[in-house]
Amino acid sequence: MKNKPVIILVEPQMGENIGASARAMLNFGLTDLRLVRPRDGWPNQAAIDMSAGALEAMPPVKIFDTLADAAKNMHFLFATTARTRDMVKPVYAPAAAIQETRVKITGKQNVAFVFGPERAGLGNDDVALCHAILTMTTNPDFSSINIAASVLILCYEWMAAQSDKNEIQMPTGASFPVEHEKLEELLLRLEEELDKGGFFRAKDQKPTMLRNIRNLFLRTGMTDQEVRTFHGMLSALINKQ
Amino acid sequence: MKNKPVIILVEPQMGENIGASARAMLNFGLTDLRLVRPRDGWPNQAAIDMSAGALEAMPPVKIFDTLADAAKNMHFLFATTARTRDMVKPVYAPAAAIQETRVKITGKQNVAFVFGPERAGLGNDDVALCHAILTMTTNPDFSSINIAASVLILCYEWMAAQSDKNEIQMPTGASFPVEHEKLEELLLRLEEELDKGGFFRAKDQKPTMLRNIRNLFLRTGMTDQEVRTFHGMLSALINKQ
Repeated sequence: MKNKPVIILVEPQMGENIGASARAMLNFGLTDLRLVRPRDGWPNQAAIDMSAGALEAMPPVKIFDTLADAAKNMHFLFATTARTRDMVKPVYAPAAAIQETRVKITGKQNVAFVFGPERAGLGNDDVALCHAILTMTTNPDFSSINIAASVLILCYEWMAAQSDKNEIQMPTGASFPVEHEKLEELLLRLEEELDKGGFFRAKDQKPTMLRNIRNLFLRTGMTDQEVRTFHGMLSALINKQ
Repeated sequence: MKNKPVIILVEPQMGENIGASARAMLNFGLTDLRLVRPRDGWPNQAAIDMSAGALEAMPPVKIFDTLADAAKNMHFLFATTARTRDMVKPVYAPAAAIQETRVKITGKQNVAFVFGPERAGLGNDDVALCHAILTMTTNPDFSSINIAASVLILCYEWMAAQSDKNEIQMPTGASFPVEHEKLEELLLRLEEELDKGGFFRAKDQKPTMLRNIRNLFLRTGMTDQEVRTFHGMLSALINKQ
């Protein structure tokens, strides 16, 4: 997906937040940052410092007088707000907004996420200019989220939707999960050695105990190499006795 | 779910990052923050300032000498790392890790997410102490994520999993989506008025044009109130002529 979402910050107050937003964007592959009337002008040294190199690596930030100007070539705007406003406008949670964004961007549309000033958030006129509202569930007793944190979550969801954030992997290096037969050999050897050591005192409980041991070994998902290591450990333990 | 994940920061360097992590935690309802050998000691004024009140609102941060100490009452530890290590250990993406966490916490287990120092990340011994690795996809050309940003993403995923971050809502206030019959009335009136105004010049294209207009109106998902408003607009427009 070559086309990517745009981030528009309306009247951002602190340079640090602009810089942290830029860093978050580039961390997750976004590079089109637009500012509407940044309080302290532009460029802003605090922003550059906080961006950890992102602002230098990204295309230059674009500055505008109004949100309408910043949004001229956009097809769809999400207004990010801490609370839903009294408007008949769809309200998206972040992952749903990203899903909608992917659909629109696949259809060659330009999509932007719009963020308001730190203190007050987006004004109602700016919200009305947007097609949809984006908001997220937070702790009702401590809901004030830093603006760069909101930007980060959106950017994270964007990249997560390209990759697979639900993924679980089990790297086994040069080794590979052991074949059934070799695990059986190990379990059989273990059983024999335990027998010799008098481990199974209550004969009638032996099947249950063996089953429990088997479950333990199966859960580990042993690799070839680990089975060999375990054989070595077993040999060492026997020699000790 | 009363039991919640714990955040453990190992050798955090900058107080600002501890404070930003605390704010992110409380934003999304987490309150158990543990520090292992914080570089600048504890308490730390930079942390308190950056937390925007979170550190004062949360239970006191706990300080430990080793990760093993900090993890004593934990049942499952996720090591967050920027790259997967050469260890046979499951590697989770954030949402998958949160899903696993929910399963374990439902089963009364205590789960912690462990973060390493800003500069180098977790040492291999500390990673080995953990049950699983947690990592996320980032821009390979700009992958250095701020530690508080990583904490934020985990906390966000935690709360999002409790609510529904895939949600889309359409608030309509006191009004309600209009009933089919009333929309038909509006469309019929519109057609009549357009006819009077000579809108449908090419008679054979009228059905197609009406269908297009209908699609436009249906897509808007109009409310009762909006249909009344549109009737008013129509009346005003007619009187003008």
